[in-house]
Amino acid sequence: MQRPIKIDQVTAALRDRLKERLSANPTLRSQHANTASWVPPEPPDLVIFPETAEEVAFVVSVCGELGVPIIPFGAGTSVEGQVNAPFGGVCLDMTRMNRVLRIGARDLDCTVEPGITRKALNLALRDQGLFFPIDPGADATLGGMASTRASGTNAVRYGTMKDNVLALEAVMPDGRIIRTANRARKTATGYDLTRLLVGAEGTLGIITKLTLRLHGIPEAIAVARCHFPSIEAACDAAIASIQFGLPLARMELMDALTVGAINAYSDTGLPEQPILLVEFHGSPASVAEQLKNFEEIVSDYGATDLVSVDAPEECNKLWQARHDAWWAALRMRPGCLAYTTDVCVPLSRLSECVSLAGAEAQRLGLLAPTVGHVGDGNFHMLVLLDPDSTSEKKLGLDFASWLANLAMSMDGTCTGEHGIGQGKQDALRRELGDSTEYMSAIKVALDPLGIMNPGKIF
Amino acid sequence: MQRPIKIDQVTAALRDRLKERLSANPTLRSQHANTASWVPPEPPDLVIFPETAEEVAFVVSVCGELGVPIIPFGAGTSVEGQVNAPFGGVCLDMTRMNRVLRIGARDLDCTVEPGITRKALNLALRDQGLFFPIDPGADATLGGMASTRASGTNAVRYGTMKDNVLALEAVMPDGRIIRTANRARKTATGYDLTRLLVGAEGTLGIITKLTLRLHGIPEAIAVARCHFPSIEAACDAAIASIQFGLPLARMELMDALTVGAINAYSDTGLPEQPILLVEFHGSPASVAEQLKNFEEIVSDYGATDLVSVDAPEECNKLWQARHDAWWAALRMRPGCLAYTTDVCVPLSRLSECVSLAGAEAQRLGLLAPTVGHVGDGNFHMLVLLDPDSTSEKKLGLDFASWLANLAMSMDGTCTGEHGIGQGKQDALRRELGDSTEYMSAIKVALDPLGIMNPGKIF
Repeated sequence: MQRPIKIDQVTAALRDRLKERLSANPTLRSQHANTASWVPPEPPDLVIFPETAEEVAFVVSVCGELGVPIIPFGAGTSVEGQVNAPFGGVCLDMTRMNRVLRIGARDLDCTVEPGITRKALNLALRDQGLFFPIDPGADATLGGMASTRASGTNAVRYGTMKDNVLALEAVMPDGRIIRTANRARKTATGYDLTRLLVGAEGTLGIITKLTLRLHGIPEAIAVARCHFPSIEAACDAAIASIQFGLPLARMELMDALTVGAINAYSDTGLPEQPILLVEFHGSPASVAEQLKNFEEIVSDYGATDLVSVDAPEECNKLWQARHDAWWAALRMRPGCLAYTTDVCVPLSRLSECVSLAGAEAQRLGLLAPTVGHVGDGNFHMLVLLDPDSTSEKKLGLDFASWLANLAMSMDGTCTGEHGIGQGKQDALRRELGDSTEYMSAIKVALDPLGIMNPGKIF
Repeated sequence: MQRPIKIDQVTAALRDRLKERLSANPTLRSQHANTASWVPPEPPDLVIFPETAEEVAFVVSVCGELGVPIIPFGAGTSVEGQVNAPFGGVCLDMTRMNRVLRIGARDLDCTVEPGITRKALNLALRDQGLFFPIDPGADATLGGMASTRASGTNAVRYGTMKDNVLALEAVMPDGRIIRTANRARKTATGYDLTRLLVGAEGTLGIITKLTLRLHGIPEAIAVARCHFPSIEAACDAAIASIQFGLPLARMELMDALTVGAINAYSDTGLPEQPILLVEFHGSPASVAEQLKNFEEIVSDYGATDLVSVDAPEECNKLWQARHDAWWAALRMRPGCLAYTTDVCVPLSRLSECVSLAGAEAQRLGLLAPTVGHVGDGNFHMLVLLDPDSTSEKKLGLDFASWLANLAMSMDGTCTGEHGIGQGKQDALRRELGDSTEYMSAIKVALDPLGIMNPGKIF
């Protein structure tokens, strides 16, 4: 796809219908490029705020006729450049399509528009005693979360977006609006288009409606925190808890570097040792039993200073440290650029992977605090780099590539939850080889003009 | 695809390598057609027993060159004609590829060949304290279960095949062997080819290896059975249990007709009322708590004669009635043909759907005992038809079509777990409309010659 694209013609064709909801304002455009990570921003030519699926279909049809790229945009919190416009084009900002269309309390499901954020959704669900569990950290939109197959802290118990989307409505590259499934909790109706669009990063269609699985807010919640003598001990305790079959809702690791950063950030005074932070959901009796089992398991791995709480405000206080981790880490090196790794390995290799990665970062002189959704074998290193040093940036990217290869050598993946976007295309090909050619064939079959978020995944 | 196909040329090209593992024996061929349901059998021209993925790839390449259909075959227990050969061709009987290649006790996963059956797999896992939960009733092969997106009794707690396959190796229509993912518990590496092949019914590739999620055998198991004054009461009690958040492992409904059939079949002397049969997994304390909550919930719906057991042989005895249901139902009308419906609706509509369907069957004079995986909103009516009566068969098929439409009108599906095959193609198009065109586009993109299990889904 070549510039110059026919943006004047697109504008002319769309303006009558979209009016002030179409803009080429440079500030607005720059706000609609990648802003959340190391990937350099590439703004679109136009930003459009559709309000209905029919408007999205109209924009897609016009862009199809003129061969102009379309980039769907939610909260802009993706970290691999998924919202960039490397070939220019039209950004579809979906945030005005943010309604809850239906809550099915008896069916434990709901239907929402893609622009609603997870916090807004959970607020809308709360008085029905329901919640949507996927929590990637950022207050992302549900459309974006589906498109990047988001997961985060609750995935160990509740799965990822692939497990919690029942059905989608989407505008396909030819401008038609389809439904991928109905509201049944399971279905065997041919190819799983729902799961194909989840994780497709907007390259196969624009999600305009989601039907989501919900869960009852647990009767009881407790949070526990404990410290370990080493990162290996923390990982091994995490693995043992999963193998024991504890139905943990969250299990987060923070390494000693991260704990130190959090202490500096908010004066928490925690011992600067690796931490596991764990959340239990269930009936009061079941939560108490889980907690007791957890205590017994982690004590075998040298856990100390175990604190457990169940009052909501106390739980939030313990979680605050994890929520602060990203900002605290950035503060370790003011003005730095953070490159976030995202490998995920089989649990049996987690301890070794975390430990080898830490040693290699240290050998290279890289500052890289580590946090992890360790119940899934997924961890992030925030590699803090000098944005003005080309050599340091190269060192950081080379380290990330080495770490991706290490994970692959352990039968793991370069990306547990951040997706491919612009940043991991080489890693994807190294990881899945010929499989990527079948992905390309699907892309070409469904989007022969290549207008849907070009330059992502492939 | 037209007959005559070049079967002599295929035979000539394959015989040297496959020797006696290639056969055109008529008895063998007829055993490799649909035998498990109302769909008339259509045997293949050749049956081949491959032993490696490379042999599968070799067969696929030869068939590709000659334009000859390939039909993968496991246990032959699919019910919508998925293993038929409407255009003739080569049946790949995968049952010699039945090894457990690896059990990862620490990772709660395993890698197996597609020809292993679920019972053989669970036998191999048992001494490691692990099990694979998906139980479609029949002792199907794992390759077949993945290909039809099987689920069954345990799905309410453990999900379906889509939730329990981590990665696949498959021979694609061009003869290349690919891996869809690695062993990480979650991944965000582009399009979800794993979930695309799960449920594709062999129309996009032949599965040659599966990496599966496993679960620890629960510390405690209990089974409870109770009777209800009406089918609506039984459904409503089931829904209430799910809404309460009980983590039930199985919850099966049998209607009064089925209970009567079971009494006649094995002299069980059960009150001829609708039954719920429920299984609880967890720690002893958690199972006791679940059971107590279940008792309280169902008593609100008029449940009587609640029996609960936890000794394995007692549990098996209670389950035997459910296992016998299919055979007992057939015995109600000796020599009959059974058409099995498979609709699945949102839980809030289940009671109404079951009740309307029962009334309509009665109005039409059809004998149709009902069993259901009611925790998922999925139920089967075994419509017992006279195989020699064209008008009765038409009446049965028309009823099934009416029921599929009823489910769709309730935002449900024509098939919760049996798939499309040859039998539900019209229903699929009614249900998903334009979406099926994108399925076709994917099929054409990946299998341009149309050699992979032609005549299924589309």
